[in-house]
Amino acid sequence: MKAGNGTTADNGESAPRTGRRPGHSGAREAILTAARTRFAESGFDKTSIRAVASGAGVDPALVHHYFGTKQQLFAAVVDLPIDPEATLRKIDAAPLDRLGETILGNVVAIWDSPAGPGVVAAVRSILGGGDMALARTFVLDVVLERVRLRIATAEDDGRARVSLIATQMIGVLVARKIIEVEPLASMPAAELVAAISPTIQHYLTGEINIPAP
Amino acid sequence: MKAGNGTTADNGESAPRTGRRPGHSGAREAILTAARTRFAESGFDKTSIRAVASGAGVDPALVHHYFGTKQQLFAAVVDLPIDPEATLRKIDAAPLDRLGETILGNVVAIWDSPAGPGVVAAVRSILGGGDMALARTFVLDVVLERVRLRIATAEDDGRARVSLIATQMIGVLVARKIIEVEPLASMPAAELVAAISPTIQHYLTGEINIPAP
Repeated sequence: MKAGNGTTADNGESAPRTGRRPGHSGAREAILTAARTRFAESGFDKTSIRAVASGAGVDPALVHHYFGTKQQLFAAVVDLPIDPEATLRKIDAAPLDRLGETILGNVVAIWDSPAGPGVVAAVRSILGGGDMALARTFVLDVVLERVRLRIATAEDDGRARVSLIATQMIGVLVARKIIEVEPLASMPAAELVAAISPTIQHYLTGEINIPAP
Repeated sequence: MKAGNGTTADNGESAPRTGRRPGHSGAREAILTAARTRFAESGFDKTSIRAVASGAGVDPALVHHYFGTKQQLFAAVVDLPIDPEATLRKIDAAPLDRLGETILGNVVAIWDSPAGPGVVAAVRSILGGGDMALARTFVLDVVLERVRLRIATAEDDGRARVSLIATQMIGVLVARKIIEVEPLASMPAAELVAAISPTIQHYLTGEINIPAP
């Protein structure tokens, strides 16, 4: 299931070919195009639904109607076959000392699920030459920002910590699902999480040898 | 500088176009093609110079003449702009309790060197849809096998440990050099190594929550 496909089917294929596509799917495509441009140029945080609507020449209410939240719009832009919101809510709810295993466990469960091949295909396409600005804003602004808010303190904004977490999470995805390095690729998820979540927890809350910002 | 380009230049471009290319570069190309096939089918360990020579219809001495060692032949096949042997020798020479920082420090130094963009380009091309069997044999048989031999014991063959190391190393490469996640991408190499090498050392010699093989 794709996130944020809205309720209106794209009837472009069955409609008569009279040049422009029918109004509804034309607006939907225009919103996606405008959103892709804005997210890539300005990042996730600085892109508003209002700005996307303006770029597409439609009313902001139509953007919400087709795509839901800004996060769901983003998921549609990067063609992500899952809605990251459900996982992010679990991260919000986990106790701080179990955050490492919560993040890794939930993310590995997605990669190993029926939606996994779609996620892996999106990652491969980006790494092979896709839109790196979009990939960066997805990793930093959508996924890791919520994690950062859990660990930020007055002395440490958590930015270096979440970038270290990114290295370990991305590496597990690439080694397990793309290069298929054994025995990691065949390891049951529970074993993988037991072996690697202490690293994630260390980057979250442990003593890290990096200067404070 | 490319590893294993040998001493004979490929003059194919300036020679008259008479169908087949001149003998020398024809043999060189035939060796590369045969080596690519064998490495992908059988992996690094089970591929012999003799088998590559036979596949190319040349004498094994000619393979050594053009490419040097089997490792150098492999580096030429994957179009790697460095010779991994120099780094692997440093890994062989490091004391066990400093192996983590030795591996990460030397590998990050290559990525940050003038040869780095070539390495990153090769990795991107493989991740985007290149020859995954070759990537796997490079990571496991060429790079990590030498690391594994340093840590293997009677109770633990080290295979799970080196696959965990692969996740962290691959993730640092992708996050720092491909996606460019900040502040990691701009972090001085010494800080990066200080922050992440404890993880590598932990996977090498620490207590890991994985069942023995």
